[in-house]
Amino acid sequence: MIRVSILGSGNVATHLISAFLNSADIQLVQVFSRNLEKIKHLEGEVLITNNLHELELVDVTIVAISDDSILGLSKKLKNDSGLIAHTSGTASLNELKGNYPKGVFYPLQTFSKEKKFNLKKVPICIEADSDSNLLLLEKLATGISDNVYFIDSKQRQNIHIAAVFVNNFSNHLYEIGNQICKKHNIPFEILQPLIKETAKKVKSMTPSDAQTGPAKRNDQLTIEKHLSTLSNQQQEIYKVLTKSISKAYN
Amino acid sequence: MIRVSILGSGNVATHLISAFLNSADIQLVQVFSRNLEKIKHLEGEVLITNNLHELELVDVTIVAISDDSILGLSKKLKNDSGLIAHTSGTASLNELKGNYPKGVFYPLQTFSKEKKFNLKKVPICIEADSDSNLLLLEKLATGISDNVYFIDSKQRQNIHIAAVFVNNFSNHLYEIGNQICKKHNIPFEILQPLIKETAKKVKSMTPSDAQTGPAKRNDQLTIEKHLSTLSNQQQEIYKVLTKSISKAYN
Repeated sequence: MIRVSILGSGNVATHLISAFLNSADIQLVQVFSRNLEKIKHLEGEVLITNNLHELELVDVTIVAISDDSILGLSKKLKNDSGLIAHTSGTASLNELKGNYPKGVFYPLQTFSKEKKFNLKKVPICIEADSDSNLLLLEKLATGISDNVYFIDSKQRQNIHIAAVFVNNFSNHLYEIGNQICKKHNIPFEILQPLIKETAKKVKSMTPSDAQTGPAKRNDQLTIEKHLSTLSNQQQEIYKVLTKSISKAYN
Repeated sequence: MIRVSILGSGNVATHLISAFLNSADIQLVQVFSRNLEKIKHLEGEVLITNNLHELELVDVTIVAISDDSILGLSKKLKNDSGLIAHTSGTASLNELKGNYPKGVFYPLQTFSKEKKFNLKKVPICIEADSDSNLLLLEKLATGISDNVYFIDSKQRQNIHIAAVFVNNFSNHLYEIGNQICKKHNIPFEILQPLIKETAKKVKSMTPSDAQTGPAKRNDQLTIEKHLSTLSNQQQEIYKVLTKSISKAYN
């Protein structure tokens, strides 16, 4: 049984808390939040506190707070606190300032508090300052997920950049699809199966093999027709992506 | 029982042929292809031909060929052929040149021949030159899909543009994710659950509500860090999408 505490009450913290509470191999001992109100509902299930001096001794403390706050908070943690791991996709291992054992426990997913989902399929990227600490984090990660990866700080930062493309930017393209639908009185739901299939396709073939459309065919007539109906902002995006696809295939 | 023929042997034709063959309400009578070799395997199940003069009399003839070829082929069809419908997302109803009844039967999906899938969930956008022809196409469409929409030519052209954004362009962003992974020795599969969840999320919330990331937060430090690691082409895409997201939320 691994004893764990979580510092934080945001999206990542919320999902980890519920995953740890549901794991047979993990004992969630304590949750810390500056704002006690945010974790009040956990009282009875785990210890809660808003005081860093009240932290219990555990095997692993997960620092699930915003990137900007990691450095400041990490300085305040005692050196005999056990292994301390943050959950950031971008902060390096050494963003944790203290003489305690350090690690990273980064769940690669787009979390929103409202949307519940099973962490089992979420990749957990782990890194630590020693082999034994890495093993401890691996044990913790496999307690909540089937997909655990050893990923160093540089790789993790690049995964985060790749995630910006496939998640943040793709979502913005969905938003543009939504805007076009709205403007022409078309229900956005009509695009849902296409969005789903596009995402699904790259499980069985490479994105490069899955590429279709006027940019790939270099179909200038269609491209010009499309551009003529778009807003300036949408045109800019259409052009730059068309250019990139065109270059890759023609 | 609706009697149908299909002209064409590409991706769309292939999927429609298999859907029609599997429907209890539809009788696929004949398939035409200029290149008989491509439809040879259908012999025995349906009539096949490479000669437009040999077309049987049916209720609906589906012209599932490339946009550029619709006009030319449609001129050669007899005026007593029954309802003629093309499957293009961009060509208007009147691209069909002839004095026969006309319609559009556009399945909104990304088809590749290799990948089999059920048409049941694929939206079929239909349009026709009369109410009775529209009803006939509706009957045909509901025989293979649960999602049938009445969509006029202008709406359909805009759906096609929206589809370029959510399908072609999103897929290219997946490809960039793949390139970044390759460069840093990260398995692309690590991004799969994120890609899937991003697509799934917009079923339960609007893309605008689902938006996250450095561009939305206007996190210049992270944006600069990311840009510094990207190729020129990737930078251009990153910048233009970040600008668009930033404008929308800040």
